[in-house]
Amino acid sequence: MIIVLKENPDKKQLENLEQWLKAMGLEIHYSKGTNTTIMGLIGDTASVDDDLIRALDIVDTVKRVQEPYKNASRKFHPMDSVIDIGGKVKIGGGNFAIMAGPCSVESEDQITQVAQAVKASGAHCLRGGAFKPRTSPYAFQGMRAKGIELLEKAKDLTGLPIVTEIMDISHLDLFENVDVIQVGARNMQNFELLKELGTVRKPILLKRGLSSTLKEFLMSAEYIMAGGNENIILCERGIRTFETALRNTLDLAAIPFLKQRTHLPIIVDPSHACGISDMVLPMSIAATAAGADGLLIEVHNDPAHALCDGPQSLKPEEFDELVGKVEAVRPFAYREGS
Amino acid sequence: MIIVLKENPDKKQLENLEQWLKAMGLEIHYSKGTNTTIMGLIGDTASVDDDLIRALDIVDTVKRVQEPYKNASRKFHPMDSVIDIGGKVKIGGGNFAIMAGPCSVESEDQITQVAQAVKASGAHCLRGGAFKPRTSPYAFQGMRAKGIELLEKAKDLTGLPIVTEIMDISHLDLFENVDVIQVGARNMQNFELLKELGTVRKPILLKRGLSSTLKEFLMSAEYIMAGGNENIILCERGIRTFETALRNTLDLAAIPFLKQRTHLPIIVDPSHACGISDMVLPMSIAATAAGADGLLIEVHNDPAHALCDGPQSLKPEEFDELVGKVEAVRPFAYREGS
Amino acid sequence: MIIVLKENPDKKQLENLEQWLKAMGLEIHYSKGTNTTIMGLIGDTASVDDDLIRALDIVDTVKRVQEPYKNASRKFHPMDSVIDIGGKVKIGGGNFAIMAGPCSVESEDQITQVAQAVKASGAHCLRGGAFKPRTSPYAFQGMRAKGIELLEKAKDLTGLPIVTEIMDISHLDLFENVDVIQVGARNMQNFELLKELGTVRKPILLKRGLSSTLKEFLMSAEYIMAGGNENIILCERGIRTFETALRNTLDLAAIPFLKQRTHLPIIVDPSHACGISDMVLPMSIAATAAGADGLLIEVHNDPAHALCDGPQSLKPEEFDELVGKVEAVRPFAYREGS
Amino acid sequence: MIIVLKENPDKKQLENLEQWLKAMGLEIHYSKGTNTTIMGLIGDTASVDDDLIRALDIVDTVKRVQEPYKNASRKFHPMDSVIDIGGKVKIGGGNFAIMAGPCSVESEDQITQVAQAVKASGAHCLRGGAFKPRTSPYAFQGMRAKGIELLEKAKDLTGLPIVTEIMDISHLDLFENVDVIQVGARNMQNFELLKELGTVRKPILLKRGLSSTLKEFLMSAEYIMAGGNENIILCERGIRTFETALRNTLDLAAIPFLKQRTHLPIIVDPSHACGISDMVLPMSIAATAAGADGLLIEVHNDPAHALCDGPQSLKPEEFDELVGKVEAVRPFAYREGS
Repeated sequence: MIIVLKENPDKKQLENLEQWLKAMGLEIHYSKGTNTTIMGLIGDTASVDDDLIRALDIVDTVKRVQEPYKNASRKFHPMDSVIDIGGKVKIGGGNFAIMAGPCSVESEDQITQVAQAVKASGAHCLRGGAFKPRTSPYAFQGMRAKGIELLEKAKDLTGLPIVTEIMDISHLDLFENVDVIQVGARNMQNFELLKELGTVRKPILLKRGLSSTLKEFLMSAEYIMAGGNENIILCERGIRTFETALRNTLDLAAIPFLKQRTHLPIIVDPSHACGISDMVLPMSIAATAAGADGLLIEVHNDPAHALCDGPQSLKPEEFDELVGKVEAVRPFAYREGS
Repeated sequence: MIIVLKENPDKKQLENLEQWLKAMGLEIHYSKGTNTTIMGLIGDTASVDDDLIRALDIVDTVKRVQEPYKNASRKFHPMDSVIDIGGKVKIGGGNFAIMAGPCSVESEDQITQVAQAVKASGAHCLRGGAFKPRTSPYAFQGMRAKGIELLEKAKDLTGLPIVTEIMDISHLDLFENVDVIQVGARNMQNFELLKELGTVRKPILLKRGLSSTLKEFLMSAEYIMAGGNENIILCERGIRTFETALRNTLDLAAIPFLKQRTHLPIIVDPSHACGISDMVLPMSIAATAAGADGLLIEVHNDPAHALCDGPQSLKPEEFDELVGKVEAVRPFAYREGS
Repeated sequence: MIIVLKENPDKKQLENLEQWLKAMGLEIHYSKGTNTTIMGLIGDTASVDDDLIRALDIVDTVKRVQEPYKNASRKFHPMDSVIDIGGKVKIGGGNFAIMAGPCSVESEDQITQVAQAVKASGAHCLRGGAFKPRTSPYAFQGMRAKGIELLEKAKDLTGLPIVTEIMDISHLDLFENVDVIQVGARNMQNFELLKELGTVRKPILLKRGLSSTLKEFLMSAEYIMAGGNENIILCERGIRTFETALRNTLDLAAIPFLKQRTHLPIIVDPSHACGISDMVLPMSIAATAAGADGLLIEVHNDPAHALCDGPQSLKPEEFDELVGKVEAVRPFAYREGS
Repeated sequence: MIIVLKENPDKKQLENLEQWLKAMGLEIHYSKGTNTTIMGLIGDTASVDDDLIRALDIVDTVKRVQEPYKNASRKFHPMDSVIDIGGKVKIGGGNFAIMAGPCSVESEDQITQVAQAVKASGAHCLRGGAFKPRTSPYAFQGMRAKGIELLEKAKDLTGLPIVTEIMDISHLDLFENVDVIQVGARNMQNFELLKELGTVRKPILLKRGLSSTLKEFLMSAEYIMAGGNENIILCERGIRTFETALRNTLDLAAIPFLKQRTHLPIIVDPSHACGISDMVLPMSIAATAAGADGLLIEVHNDPAHALCDGPQSLKPEEFDELVGKVEAVRPFAYREGS
C-alpha cells in the first residue's frame, strides 16, 4: 500500500499515522521528493481500511499494491479449483458444465419436461427459479417452497443436480436438497446473506452485480470464503451500461481477467445478459471460446406461455443445437498457459 | 400499454393473446397499417407482465403508457406526503429535515458528542450506522446491536429521533426504538426485506441503488407500500457512472423528476455521493435549491480517527456552517407550481 | 412510428399535427382508448424528426417502429456486403481479414520490420497511426504526413494494403495511396468528416464511439453511405462503462446484434478495448467465435520502446500465435442461419 | 509520478528505464519493500507518457501525483479567469452570464424575435445553432453560413454578443463576427479542431463530451490554451449513464470539483442535459446554487414549430421567470472560501 502525503504535512498528525500503522504490524518506507512524500507500507495490508487513511488531512492519495482478497486469490492458490456438484458433476480445472432450465418453476409438468429435455441434450445441471426477484411487487414472485419441491422431483427423475436462487437467509432450511445455491445479481452485496452462506458446505453460484466491478465481485466471493466455504462458482451475467440495445452488456473480457486473479471457476449467463433468445447461441459460443468453465442457459418448454422472462428462453431444440456448437468450439477455447 | 405486432402474425397465436388479455379484463383497440398492426390495451395494466408479452413470437415491441406503480404515484395521490418522524419531526410538503451523524457508531462518547453537536447546529434527526455494509469481509462491520443501544442513549440525551440502517430481516426486533429504518443502496432491490418492511409502521428511508433507474427506485418504494407502509422517504445518493473523479455521480435532476411522479418526500445524501468532504457543502446547497425535502449528512467529531468513511465526513463546525447556508437558500429553492 | 397523445389534446394543435404529417406523405391510423389516443403513422418516416413531435404539448411519447437507417439496413440489402481492400483483400460475407501493426508509425525501420513480421504471420493488412488523437497536447501527436509516407513504403515492400486514421478533412489529399481510411472512436460523430468521406470511394473503417449506442453507430455509417460510399467496415472497440479493471468494456454481443440489422462487415479491436496485451489473445478468439469478420490488432517490434499505447501491443511472436489460434476457431464460429 | 515495479525486475530493463527518465530531467527516489519497489519521480512529468511506462514488462502500475495540465490549472493561476465577450459581457470571477436562444436558427423572424425576447428578460448573450450536429443524415443540418448571417443581424439589432457552434476547421472564416465559438460535446476530443482554435483570440465555449471524464475535459481546454488562446469557458451539459429517464445525467458536482482545479469559468446547459423543458428551471436554479458562472438556455418563440430539439426549449415567458429565479438565488450560491 502506498500513501502519498500532501505538501508540508502536520508533524503531529504524521506521528499519529505512523504509530497507528506500526501498531498494525506494518513497516513504513519513505520516499521524499521536493514536493511530495510517499510512504510505502510493507506487510499484510488486507485489513487496512483505505478510506480511513484517505480521511486524514495530511494524506493526498492511497493506492493498494496488493489485492485485498486472499482466499479467492490465485497467488495463494495457483491451481484451478475444481468444484464438486452433488457428487456427480465437476466444474473448473478443465471441467465444463452447462446448467439449463426455465427462469421460473411453474408446474410439475413444466419442470420435469424441461429437465428431461435438457438432460437429453447434454446439460449437466438443472436450474430453475423458485424464489424470483421481480422489480414489481405485482409480478409473479415464484412458487417459492413449492418450487423447490418440484425441482427435487425433477432431480429424482433425471438425476440432474439442481441449482436455484436464495433470496433470504430465513429460507436456508428449504435448500437442504439443493445442490448449488445461487446468489442473484441484486444480492451480490447482501453481505449478511454472504456471511451465512460461508457456513454452508455446498457450492454457491455467485452472480456479478449489475454495476459491480470485478474487484467487488471477488470481494463478495471472499466474504463467503472467509466463512469457510470455498466452493464458489462465479457467474458473469452482463453489466448495466448506457447501451440499451440489449438488456445488459455481457463483459466477456471478465473471464480471462478473473482467471488471472482467481482459481475459482467462472461461468456465463448469456440469457439474462442479452435478454433476447437470438443472442444466446452466439454469446454461448463466444463465452466458451473466451475460456468460461460453463454456461447458465434458460430453456423453456413453451416460451409463449412462460410466466416470466420468456424473451430470452430457448426452446429445447435450440438448446440442443447450442450444446452441440458449444462442445465443438471447446477444444479451440482460450486457456492460459496452453 | 401498446403492443406492436410483427408482420403477418400467426393467427392462432394472435387469438391466444387476445383471449389472455381479455381474461385479464383489458379492452383491445387495433390500429392497422400496411406493415404493422398495433394493439392498444385499455384498462388496468399494472399486473400485466411486459416480458411475458415480449416473449411471444408474434410481438415486436411492448410499450407502457401508464406507470407500473400506484401507491407511490402522484396521479392517485396529488398532495405531497408528509411523513411523521417519531412524533417530533415532519418531512415533505414544505417540511425540510436534516439528518446528521457519523457513518458508524463507534463509542458512547463519540455518538453523544456528535448528537449534541448536530442538535446545537439545528439537525432534526441523528443518523449513525450500527450495521455496516462493507465491501471487504475484513473491514469493520459496525457495532451492530450495541450500536443501536448507543444510538438510543444519544436519543434519550438529545431528544433527536434516530435513523439507522437495517441489513437483514432477522435484525428487525432490534429496531423497535429506531425512528427511521434505512434501507441502503445495496439493498434497494432486496425484495424480501422490502416486503417485510411493508408490515412495519414506521418511516423507511429508502436509498437509490448504485445503478438503479428512477423507475426501479419507485418500484422498490411500491414494494413497501404494497405491504401497507406508506411512510417512505426516498434518498438520492449518487449513481455509478464512468466518471471516477468523485465516488459517484449525484443525480440532482432526479429530485424534480421524481417530484412530478410521486408524492413521497425526497432527500439527498451528498456525503456518500461525492465521497470527499469538500463537495458536501456545495452539493447540499444545490440539492436544496433543486427542491429536496431534506439532507443526510455525515458528521464526525474527529474524522482522522473514524473507523470508516472518514473522507466524506464534516467536522461539527463545517456542519454548522452548512445548516446556515442551506437555510439561507431554502426560500429560493425550486418548488413546482409556485 | 407511433405517437401517443396526452389526455384531452388541444383540438387546434392536433389539427396542425395531422396536417403536418400528411404533408410529409404519411397516413395516420387512430386507436382511441378511454384515456389514451394513439396515432400510427404509415409510410416513410425516416426523415421525420422524433424530437420535433415530442416537443408538442399534446404528445406524450413517440416510438419508432421502423429503423431510421436504410443504406446500412439488412432489410433493404439482405446479403452480406463484401468490401474490397486495395484489390487484394476481401472482408465480409465469409471473408475474414486481420489488420495488424503498431499503434504509431515511428520510423522506417520500425514500420517495415513490423510489416514484414505480421505479413509472415498471415496478416491481411498493415495498420499504423500517422495522425494520433492524444488526450494530452503534450503527448506525441504522430508523424503525420511523414508517417503516411512510411506506411506507403512498407506497403510497397510487403504488398500489404494499409489502414490509417484520418483526423481532419483537410488531410484527405494525403490519403490517396491509403487503402482503408480509419475514422477513430472520437470522430464517430464528426459529421462533417463523415459527409466528406461519403464522397470518397475507398473503404472506411468506422470505429464505434466510446459511448455510442449501436443505433448511433449505424447512423454514422448511414451518414457516409448517404453520400454514396458503401464501403464501410464497422469496428467494435469497447465502450466506456463504470468498470475500470480494463480500459473499456468490449461489447461482443454487438457483433450478432449488428449482423441481424446490417449487411456491413464488423471487425473487433481487442487491443484498444482491453488496454493490456494479456487480454488480446482471449478476446480475439472470443470475437472470432462470436462471428466477427476480422480483427484489428496492435503489434509492435519492441513494446518497451513504443512512443505510445505500448501496454496493449503484442510482440510479433505473440501475434503469430494469435493468428494460428484465431484460424483454428474460425470453422466453429457463430454464423447466422448456418 | 509514482512507478510501482513488479517483483524481481529485470536489471537491464530497469537500467534502461532509469536512463530514459533521467534523460527527461527527472530525479528518481526509491522505496524498497520486501516484495515491491517504488520509484518516485521528481520534476516536471507533464510530458511523460504514462502509457509508455506501463508498457514495460517490469512495471506494475503508474500513478500521477501532479496534474497533467498546466495552463488550465488553478495551481499556476490561482485567481478566477474573467473572460471578456465581445467587449460587452464578462464571465467568471463573480460575473454571471446567461446565454439564451434557439437550438437552431431557422429564419430572420425567428432569430430576431427570440433575440429581442431574451434580451428583454435579461440574457447576456444570444446563442443559436447555424451548423447542427445531427445523429441522422436525413435530419435538418442547420442553415449553416446563412444561419450565421442571421445571427449577426440579430446581434446588430439587439447588441447581444452571439454564440454559435463550429463543426469543422474549414468553416472558421465564417465565424469572424461571432463573439463566442462553441465546441460541441461530440467535438470535445476533435483535437485538430482544438489546436486550430488555440490560434484564435476569441472566447471558446467548450462543452464536455457525453462520456468524457473531468480530467479529459480539462485536457481538452489545455489543448486550446497550449496554442495560446486562454479564453475558455467550460460547459457541463450532462453525461451519458445507464439512466434513461432524462436524456443525460447532469453532473452538478462537476462545478465545485472543476473550480478547485481550474481558474476557468464554468457554465451549465440544463436544456440539452435533461431534454425536457420541465427540468430546465429547477436545474438552472440548482446549477446556479452550486456555483456556476452562467447558463446556456434554449429558448424558442414557438416550440411546436421548431425544426429541432423542441422538447427542451422554454417559451419566452418561461425564460423570463427563470432569469428572475436564478438572479434571486445567486446571492446564496456556493462560493469557495466565502
